[in-house]
Amino acid sequence: MLKVAIIGASGYTGVELLRILVGHPEIEICCVTSRQHEGLPINRIFPSLSGFCELVCEPLDVDAIAKRADLVFTALPHKSAMEVVPGFLAAGCKVIDLSADYRLNDQAVYEQWYQTHSSPELLDEAVYGLPELYVDQLRTARLVANPGCYPTSVILALAPLIEKQLVDPMSLIVDSKSGVSGAGRGVKLGSLFCETNEGFRAYGIGSHRHTPEIEQELAGLSNRGLRLSFTPHLLPVNRGILSTCYADLLEDKSTDELIDLYQQRYNDESFVRVMPEGQLPNIAYVRGTNFCDIGLVSDQNTGRVIVVSAIDNLVKGAAGQAVQNMNVICGFHDALGLGIVPTFP
Amino acid sequence: MLKVAIIGASGYTGVELLRILVGHPEIEICCVTSRQHEGLPINRIFPSLSGFCELVCEPLDVDAIAKRADLVFTALPHKSAMEVVPGFLAAGCKVIDLSADYRLNDQAVYEQWYQTHSSPELLDEAVYGLPELYVDQLRTARLVANPGCYPTSVILALAPLIEKQLVDPMSLIVDSKSGVSGAGRGVKLGSLFCETNEGFRAYGIGSHRHTPEIEQELAGLSNRGLRLSFTPHLLPVNRGILSTCYADLLEDKSTDELIDLYQQRYNDESFVRVMPEGQLPNIAYVRGTNFCDIGLVSDQNTGRVIVVSAIDNLVKGAAGQAVQNMNVICGFHDALGLGIVPTFP
Amino acid sequence: MLKVAIIGASGYTGVELLRILVGHPEIEICCVTSRQHEGLPINRIFPSLSGFCELVCEPLDVDAIAKRADLVFTALPHKSAMEVVPGFLAAGCKVIDLSADYRLNDQAVYEQWYQTHSSPELLDEAVYGLPELYVDQLRTARLVANPGCYPTSVILALAPLIEKQLVDPMSLIVDSKSGVSGAGRGVKLGSLFCETNEGFRAYGIGSHRHTPEIEQELAGLSNRGLRLSFTPHLLPVNRGILSTCYADLLEDKSTDELIDLYQQRYNDESFVRVMPEGQLPNIAYVRGTNFCDIGLVSDQNTGRVIVVSAIDNLVKGAAGQAVQNMNVICGFHDALGLGIVPTFP
Amino acid sequence: MLKVAIIGASGYTGVELLRILVGHPEIEICCVTSRQHEGLPINRIFPSLSGFCELVCEPLDVDAIAKRADLVFTALPHKSAMEVVPGFLAAGCKVIDLSADYRLNDQAVYEQWYQTHSSPELLDEAVYGLPELYVDQLRTARLVANPGCYPTSVILALAPLIEKQLVDPMSLIVDSKSGVSGAGRGVKLGSLFCETNEGFRAYGIGSHRHTPEIEQELAGLSNRGLRLSFTPHLLPVNRGILSTCYADLLEDKSTDELIDLYQQRYNDESFVRVMPEGQLPNIAYVRGTNFCDIGLVSDQNTGRVIVVSAIDNLVKGAAGQAVQNMNVICGFHDALGLGIVPTFP
Repeated sequence: MLKVAIIGASGYTGVELLRILVGHPEIEICCVTSRQHEGLPINRIFPSLSGFCELVCEPLDVDAIAKRADLVFTALPHKSAMEVVPGFLAAGCKVIDLSADYRLNDQAVYEQWYQTHSSPELLDEAVYGLPELYVDQLRTARLVANPGCYPTSVILALAPLIEKQLVDPMSLIVDSKSGVSGAGRGVKLGSLFCETNEGFRAYGIGSHRHTPEIEQELAGLSNRGLRLSFTPHLLPVNRGILSTCYADLLEDKSTDELIDLYQQRYNDESFVRVMPEGQLPNIAYVRGTNFCDIGLVSDQNTGRVIVVSAIDNLVKGAAGQAVQNMNVICGFHDALGLGIVPTFP
Repeated sequence: MLKVAIIGASGYTGVELLRILVGHPEIEICCVTSRQHEGLPINRIFPSLSGFCELVCEPLDVDAIAKRADLVFTALPHKSAMEVVPGFLAAGCKVIDLSADYRLNDQAVYEQWYQTHSSPELLDEAVYGLPELYVDQLRTARLVANPGCYPTSVILALAPLIEKQLVDPMSLIVDSKSGVSGAGRGVKLGSLFCETNEGFRAYGIGSHRHTPEIEQELAGLSNRGLRLSFTPHLLPVNRGILSTCYADLLEDKSTDELIDLYQQRYNDESFVRVMPEGQLPNIAYVRGTNFCDIGLVSDQNTGRVIVVSAIDNLVKGAAGQAVQNMNVICGFHDALGLGIVPTFP
Repeated sequence: MLKVAIIGASGYTGVELLRILVGHPEIEICCVTSRQHEGLPINRIFPSLSGFCELVCEPLDVDAIAKRADLVFTALPHKSAMEVVPGFLAAGCKVIDLSADYRLNDQAVYEQWYQTHSSPELLDEAVYGLPELYVDQLRTARLVANPGCYPTSVILALAPLIEKQLVDPMSLIVDSKSGVSGAGRGVKLGSLFCETNEGFRAYGIGSHRHTPEIEQELAGLSNRGLRLSFTPHLLPVNRGILSTCYADLLEDKSTDELIDLYQQRYNDESFVRVMPEGQLPNIAYVRGTNFCDIGLVSDQNTGRVIVVSAIDNLVKGAAGQAVQNMNVICGFHDALGLGIVPTFP
Repeated sequence: MLKVAIIGASGYTGVELLRILVGHPEIEICCVTSRQHEGLPINRIFPSLSGFCELVCEPLDVDAIAKRADLVFTALPHKSAMEVVPGFLAAGCKVIDLSADYRLNDQAVYEQWYQTHSSPELLDEAVYGLPELYVDQLRTARLVANPGCYPTSVILALAPLIEKQLVDPMSLIVDSKSGVSGAGRGVKLGSLFCETNEGFRAYGIGSHRHTPEIEQELAGLSNRGLRLSFTPHLLPVNRGILSTCYADLLEDKSTDELIDLYQQRYNDESFVRVMPEGQLPNIAYVRGTNFCDIGLVSDQNTGRVIVVSAIDNLVKGAAGQAVQNMNVICGFHDALGLGIVPTFP
């Protein structure tokens, strides 16, 4: 049994890792940490876990934990993550980092959008944990940079078109909508029920930190420049991201032809479901699961293709993808422990 | 006192007309009709109206109603509306039609998107009821085609840019999100609580019937062609439409300059609130009111402007705008009876 | 014009007072305070108020404000309220206090449930601001203790039965459910969207601070002892309280007879709507308004009566009732400025 | 592999049976039926099931299905169920009926609350499928009457107290709140999003059909009469029932003592989680799972005990309990295939 530790277990990503991992047949959770709830059983913080996990929250002692764990999930905010990741690696642990700290290859870009990086030497080594793009590199990775939730939904939606140079990369517009859990479990005014329920708004237009991450990955698939508008919105639901992506087609392709292309591209992937013509994704159909559902329409009137993708931001957008990455680097089937059926309604 | 009748009072647009009109100082509601609930007091159908309106639902007898009413609101589905509108006009009533039947100037376009038109001779006469564009024509109108909810939010968002030729009209992308009341009070699977709550999806991509209406109005402001992608989405809230509109700027304009332009354009309008730089609309801030809030960002990185507008689909998107139109054609102040303060939260 | 000040304007009760008062024909808001947002225009904190109120948040300077205001609404947490109320009174202002500080007549009871009282000498003078019970005392009041939200819904539901000695006061069970705004705008984990949405739970069983307030008022109507179980629950909606009240009937009364009794009792009240047999209240039917809707069933099988009441916790449960009280003590019609029609859906 | 058929697969109970059964290691789903969607793949009706189930909806042909199935789940409305259950039994199938048709032992009571019973001879044989009460009878059952959702939550909440004669059975008051999926997937006005969202109401006071079912089971545990008030409410969430139960204690028992009693009573049960003192159930903590969480408070001031239980109405209240019953009658571990971890948030 692989011993895994969860650093930062009292956030929504933490509890989601626990939800998935308590049923995983090849691992054992040896440690959960929480600065805020040290000494408290995790099932007191999350009574949903009652009967599944009796662990008590520990303080974050890198050396002590590294002795007991083979693999560590760091579910900390950016900046906090890079304070501990090098230590776990040095002590021989594999690390799957769910923060933004190792996602950007270019230190300068990171420092422009976040702050000074304290372990830039790891940026080259870190593998961007999107198995649909990097499964070979992941197999031997020591440090995985688990992708952001928005980028996961956008990259999977647009990759087939950009890989095949079917759309003008200067024409990309991405309109994304995320459930409130994307803002984390931190206690802030904007996440209050009454501030979000029955409301809907855009935020961070032209300035959201996931923009450079999307650009980095899509640019890597394109042989040309890239011009991307990315607009996130806050959706009054617990979970789910739906991204509506617009691009100008460079050649005439029917909806049917494009769906074929997507089905071939993702045929071997465990967690991408390409929808038949006439059907479109709904965040309700992927709830609680690691799926990314993709639907699309080629609009003959405008010469544009509209691709819609739906994920659960806490699963394929965070904890589920992290477990998928763990499966890959440990040599398990990538879907092991992730065969959750969506709960509808 | 002006006598008004509400045809089709038992839908969400009907009850919203009643909510607004029971407090209007210059009118008297003389009749409400409902095929389905004939003989039932309207406050039994909508207990919210208890104490405000004791009227009993009548059958739809055009001649009898026309004798008692000066002005008629037809809150019927398209096709049903055009079966009665000519009769009310012939009997001397003014008509504000909330259906789509008289919104499109071109009969062929109407028949392509809907069905055969039975009174095409009225298409020329009908005035498109967006006071911010057509207030002069409305003053003397006999028949008002009250705009669709999506078109209202989109046209107000984009008109200033297109009027001033500041954006490339071939570059327009509109990503709209509507609350569930936009689907009406008809009993259908897709409007069930469990089918929409905690869900989010796009629908009618490239094929929504509001597309030609938006195109007609924006094309009328442009001296060039127009290429518009319009994607509606279903939002799990009762009320509200938020439209996120993308366009390529033809000349470099800062956010500040564009906000100035919008503030000048809408300075004299009672119901358009242009937000200061750094603020963006939220459907929660216009709930229950006739406001259209507009915010925008000029994104220097992409050369695009992103305009976001928010309305309450049942008010500025339907009943409120209808009352505003009534005020205009009756010579009242256009905000009379519409001074509702948004309810937040 | 009466000059009024709102102390603590940046909470949900504060913005609700503003929503109602900006349209009140006999008053002028001369001051809003907010410790946290001093110097910020209130319409920046609540963009919903844009166009209605341009006031800037001031610090809480009792003397300075008392010079400008005739009447003060204190919308502060308990304990903070009693730090300023005596000062406003001493300076000649009338005060409507929306906290719990002056609701309990008995200092010992207050101190058992809250903390030491710093101005117990005012407890006798303060009038409990439920106009349906105390309108005569309110007319000459200097200090009004505006009732709690739960107590308002419960007392109005049970008063007619207890006044007439129709039920056993030892048999009272009240099961109440409140929307999340009842917890205020304070930033706490339990009020986060994801902690409440799609959830439902009881809290404070047998220990909620509104219990002694309900007991005080119902005991005052009874000539016997009182045994009350009060269980509050947290409902995933923005607004609304529904209280389901159970009592053993002392004599056989039909539903019809009891509804008659309620209609007579509340016939002259502006804001109590007794529903006809077969209809039951819904918080959606009172949203945004000062109404208390009451429905009831006499259950012949059990000999119990079940009374259900619905209010908007921010209106009849707080700000609306406060304005109603202001109207009474100022000699206006008690419904002045409160003729809001419920927004449904 | 046991072959099972699901009769009525296109409702919420049907899709929930599928969600659970597609992952069950000992069974194979051989048939799904839907009158309305005959010929349509079930994963077109429920895209959430895409990748998990490719079955096509069949018409309801009892003989043909009985030849292929060992066990049949009938997820039909009452009355429709009893039209086919006898046929399946006669053909040798075991039947788990999720309707109300075989829950009441007494034909007269059934006919008073429902309608004429067409197979009353089966009422005696049918075993009430609450494993926590009837596990021995279930082991050899041919026909299981799967309990109603409300009754499951109420009986599990009150059974320990009534079995031990600790409360006065004449004092029972049950205030229950159910999510909207409890009303099924039928297309009716009251289940529309806008009619329920942001609303809350009681319904069927003193007249809900689950009342006799609760009374039958609780009376069976009591050696005295029973007087029960049962009030259901409609909660604006997809899933979940929370029942708040009130009873007069016959002897003084502390919260702690009563929790002990419950923990002993349910110690061997797979799906009842008794919460420690100070914690109360939340429907969010059992979402998607077969758990019944129970918390309680002994209120010294009133001499009453308040017991709160939470279930997912579609799982422990329907499909999950049905699978648990299948496990019991087939000799599997009762939790087989039901080890789902709650999804929070």
